[in-house]
Amino acid sequence: MAGVEASAGRPVVPSRAAQRPLGIRDITLIGGFWVTLQETNGRATLEHCERWMERLGWLGNFDRVADASTGPTDLVHSGWSFSDSEVYKLLEALAWEYGRTGEARLDAKFRQLSARVEAAQDPDGYLSTAFGHPGQPARYTDLEQGHELYCVGHLLQAAVARLRTSGPDELVEVARKAADHVCETFGAGGPEDGICGHPGIEVGLMEFGRATGEARYIAQAQLFLDRRGHGTLGDISLGRAYFQDDVPVRRAGVLRGHAVRALYLSAAAVDAAVDRDDRELLDAVIRQWDRTLARRTHLTGGMGSRHQDEGFGEDWELPPDRAYSETCAGVASIMLAWRLYLATGEVKYADVIERTFFNVVATSPRSDGRAFFYANPLHQRVAGAASDDDTMSPRAESGVRAAWFDVSCCPTNVARTLATWQSYAASCSGDELTLLQYAAMRVTAEVGAGQRFSVDVETAYPDDGLITICIAAAPDHEVALRLRVPLWAGGATLDDNGDDNGRRTHAAPGFVTVRRTFAPGDEIRLRLPMAPRFTWPHPQIDAVRGCVAVERGPLVYCAESVDLPSSVALGDVAVDTSSQPREHEGAVVVSAMSNAAACDATTWPYVAAAPPYTAETAGFFDLALVPYHRWAERGPSAMRIWLPSLSPHSH
Amino acid sequence: MAGVEASAGRPVVPSRAAQRPLGIRDITLIGGFWVTLQETNGRATLEHCERWMERLGWLGNFDRVADASTGPTDLVHSGWSFSDSEVYKLLEALAWEYGRTGEARLDAKFRQLSARVEAAQDPDGYLSTAFGHPGQPARYTDLEQGHELYCVGHLLQAAVARLRTSGPDELVEVARKAADHVCETFGAGGPEDGICGHPGIEVGLMEFGRATGEARYIAQAQLFLDRRGHGTLGDISLGRAYFQDDVPVRRAGVLRGHAVRALYLSAAAVDAAVDRDDRELLDAVIRQWDRTLARRTHLTGGMGSRHQDEGFGEDWELPPDRAYSETCAGVASIMLAWRLYLATGEVKYADVIERTFFNVVATSPRSDGRAFFYANPLHQRVAGAASDDDTMSPRAESGVRAAWFDVSCCPTNVARTLATWQSYAASCSGDELTLLQYAAMRVTAEVGAGQRFSVDVETAYPDDGLITICIAAAPDHEVALRLRVPLWAGGATLDDNGDDNGRRTHAAPGFVTVRRTFAPGDEIRLRLPMAPRFTWPHPQIDAVRGCVAVERGPLVYCAESVDLPSSVALGDVAVDTSSQPREHEGAVVVSAMSNAAACDATTWPYVAAAPPYTAETAGFFDLALVPYHRWAERGPSAMRIWLPSLSPHSH
Repeated sequence: MAGVEASAGRPVVPSRAAQRPLGIRDITLIGGFWVTLQETNGRATLEHCERWMERLGWLGNFDRVADASTGPTDLVHSGWSFSDSEVYKLLEALAWEYGRTGEARLDAKFRQLSARVEAAQDPDGYLSTAFGHPGQPARYTDLEQGHELYCVGHLLQAAVARLRTSGPDELVEVARKAADHVCETFGAGGPEDGICGHPGIEVGLMEFGRATGEARYIAQAQLFLDRRGHGTLGDISLGRAYFQDDVPVRRAGVLRGHAVRALYLSAAAVDAAVDRDDRELLDAVIRQWDRTLARRTHLTGGMGSRHQDEGFGEDWELPPDRAYSETCAGVASIMLAWRLYLATGEVKYADVIERTFFNVVATSPRSDGRAFFYANPLHQRVAGAASDDDTMSPRAESGVRAAWFDVSCCPTNVARTLATWQSYAASCSGDELTLLQYAAMRVTAEVGAGQRFSVDVETAYPDDGLITICIAAAPDHEVALRLRVPLWAGGATLDDNGDDNGRRTHAAPGFVTVRRTFAPGDEIRLRLPMAPRFTWPHPQIDAVRGCVAVERGPLVYCAESVDLPSSVALGDVAVDTSSQPREHEGAVVVSAMSNAAACDATTWPYVAAAPPYTAETAGFFDLALVPYHRWAERGPSAMRIWLPSLSPHSH
Repeated sequence: MAGVEASAGRPVVPSRAAQRPLGIRDITLIGGFWVTLQETNGRATLEHCERWMERLGWLGNFDRVADASTGPTDLVHSGWSFSDSEVYKLLEALAWEYGRTGEARLDAKFRQLSARVEAAQDPDGYLSTAFGHPGQPARYTDLEQGHELYCVGHLLQAAVARLRTSGPDELVEVARKAADHVCETFGAGGPEDGICGHPGIEVGLMEFGRATGEARYIAQAQLFLDRRGHGTLGDISLGRAYFQDDVPVRRAGVLRGHAVRALYLSAAAVDAAVDRDDRELLDAVIRQWDRTLARRTHLTGGMGSRHQDEGFGEDWELPPDRAYSETCAGVASIMLAWRLYLATGEVKYADVIERTFFNVVATSPRSDGRAFFYANPLHQRVAGAASDDDTMSPRAESGVRAAWFDVSCCPTNVARTLATWQSYAASCSGDELTLLQYAAMRVTAEVGAGQRFSVDVETAYPDDGLITICIAAAPDHEVALRLRVPLWAGGATLDDNGDDNGRRTHAAPGFVTVRRTFAPGDEIRLRLPMAPRFTWPHPQIDAVRGCVAVERGPLVYCAESVDLPSSVALGDVAVDTSSQPREHEGAVVVSAMSNAAACDATTWPYVAAAPPYTAETAGFFDLALVPYHRWAERGPSAMRIWLPSLSPHSH
């Protein structure tokens, strides 16, 4: 893999940052939760995505455009106008996964698919299988809904992955020609002065500009950002907030409209802000992120409360049953939080990345990697119908994972993101190495004056809260090792066998820092408290008032109907919150009761006196909860994260 | 008004029924709540609807089809494919209003609009301005979404109104030709064997068959009902439950899918069931209605919880903020409940009719009758933007009433329904006269052996709970006067000055019956308790757990941000439920506090211990509530019906 540029294996490389990212080969996962997901991704999901796109003709779209270049035959396009983007996300996933593993089959597959893409590119660099050819709408005639530039954005992200794992090749050249065409067409004074209804080109141009060193791509991304928010696009029935063309990102107060669009756009805005040292723009995104986290984010880290527009609702509008919490919004939220972390070094962004990885990204794929959740609601009232792996789902609202979707953005987004999990696990700054996410892994970085600092992390996290860091190689002078103590981990402790005092110290949520001269063999032990715990919602979140959730470590838990006594319906369950949940025979258990007998469910349900929650005689039973990310793995099931509490305001 | 058929002025006349309806001229409203709304409707709304439909070309659609009959010019259709139905609903409203008032201007307007409709009818009876003419899709090529038969259904309902208030005329003939065309085309052995994606033709054919005495129309309605539920229509992304083609109405367990469609269809099913003495079908609808009332109906009587498909959600899915509760679904719910009342005589249907009239139908029109709510949520988080009466709204989700809508089904539906309010106020059976709804009015009916029974109702209801019934004329033998005591009116009493005992008796919710020989001048006084009261939701209704609503008589109340101290946000308010709400200087008042100081609204909102509701020092204040039906009349406002309670499970 010769020719890889300097920022090897790093998905995001800001030109200036509070923290420097590491590459996917600087961090080698040894085992555990994320290795399992990554290996399933590499072994099953990539091939699964390719097979569906072949079957549905989304790959064939490229072949048809290539063949049509010889004649005027009208082209039939399969799938939605943005189907190309799924191919590019698969290419990106293949590039990262090849970068991570070096498996030749992945490189071969990448080259094979790249060749089909390349053959469909027009001589002037334009690349789309849905516009601009015989029988198709003309180029750029539907910027609101057509997704042409959005697709190019994903092509550029695939090219970045390739550049940073293998170096320049044909696909990178295709991307360069496409990016040049975009700049020539949409640049200042160019024939087009619009923007794309679905952001994505901005974040693609930014990173492709960084990876290639071409400032014009970064300038074009900035131009798209500056044009947005002034009613540049046509009005639509959902309003211009749907695609963030209502208010310039610099002036907005909160993320709004279509969640994935808002998050991709904000990620690009952070890129632009840090590269241009535009503190006002960075502050604007931080302000929006803060309010979005405080008022528009589900417990899982999921974003999006409305099915109608796949969008954020109003502040505090967080219904568990109709939570949209699209898988892609989880991916996009991680993209944004990572850029904000690198820009500011603040721990809160890493907290959200962990929460979203474990409870949104990990929730989407079935354990075999061949079916996915599109939406990730926090409450499934009625068990869905059993899935049929041979059938395409409209969008996953069925309560079961689906093999593929009519709009199938999520599977390939999960694939490209899982392949890079470790890149979010650590960062560097000055003479500090910071561990952000925990897994059994080796992390190697250059700190301080370019000396190698290599640590082995041993842990069964998130099953267990003990994280042992063994120093494998260290600079011969004082450096710092910083460890993230998650926000939920009050009561964490640190043991440092190299500390002269030999004491166990308290490690408050945030970063705990060990600064000294390390020697190979030194061990540092961080102990995170993993007792299951109740979590209460802010009183403004109307939809879950009087309810409690159970978390353990970074995992959100849920109750599934398959775990209930046959006589009890999930909707009738309330839990005793007078004592914390407990672990029993490896399961997280709460004390629950059925309120069914106290309530008539067959007459007008609004009455002068609320039926109290009253345990029937001998009515309490142990209810075993499961990690939310594994729900619906035992067949269709009703499910809920938020459980009515018998004493709703206490704790 | 010669030639009016026997069932004069009755919107619905079942061939057999437990209760006989009265006509709109058998009940004369004297004053009060509904007179105000009816007069505004007759004076402002009818003209308002006509003006908008003229402006938008929905009336012009008929002229263009009429003109085009002379040549092959391609036709431009204005508005959606179902715009004709708005014209027919306006005609229906005009007919009822003319029947009620006898005002010549209404008759002239009816004839003028009818003539334009008549001119657009094809020679074979087909009537649509959106299909079947040059430049338009062919007839019946889009039964799923085209609404052709639905529109005819509303034409037939307009013709029924005309027949029963003025007698046969040109519009009735147009309707007859259209109905004949439908029977010839869609009858057994006809060239088409489909159904309409939007029910409406069924209920139209049923009543038109009853009004004209033509059995073939009733048979055709039955055929449409029988065809439905077998996947007769094509599948759509929302699924066939959207238009109730998933399960035959006879086998369904609950109302589901698009709420208006489900309710129109069910109304026709009741008609078919009673006319054919089909007890199984009637029981099926009753079963669905019971479960829908118990689990899928908002406190206001509103139906529909999802914006995405304008549909019912799952059982107990009743979000106040995203309640759809379409005005038309309220109208349709009244249509269904009225038919079920006539079929069974059960009081619960009249209870729901009252609730829905006061809290859905009355909520839609602005007090000037020139702007309307389309959706009727129970919670508006953020005050909307001020309305512009010259602008068409996509759909009313704005928190303010809009002058007109892109899809504008609600204004004309309100208009036709308000014009017939009194027809729901009383019924007869054998020697009984039953008063169902209360207003200052005279009710005259023939009871027993055809003798006249006439009562004057004097009341300021719903402002006041005293209802005085003065006998104006009575048969010379024993008959019964039955009075509905609403479900909420525990503690009602009855005084009968003609009762030998002269005692005040307790009148339990249901019907209270006075049976004796009445004499003119006799007075009966029903006293309904009108103290404001707290109402609690069933514990399965997750979205309003821990909250309480305030009702007074039949009215649901709400808090509006414009009534709050300037320092308090509506989202921070909680109410003291240790004592009932009270009346103070004419307003309904609760004791409220702000919880804002206890809760940080700027950080991650899910925490280990819920901030308690704690009144700040001197924190309680009087919060005046307003009837829900009048919210947003003082400018845009945040609003909520369900208020967090300081002691959520007590009362």
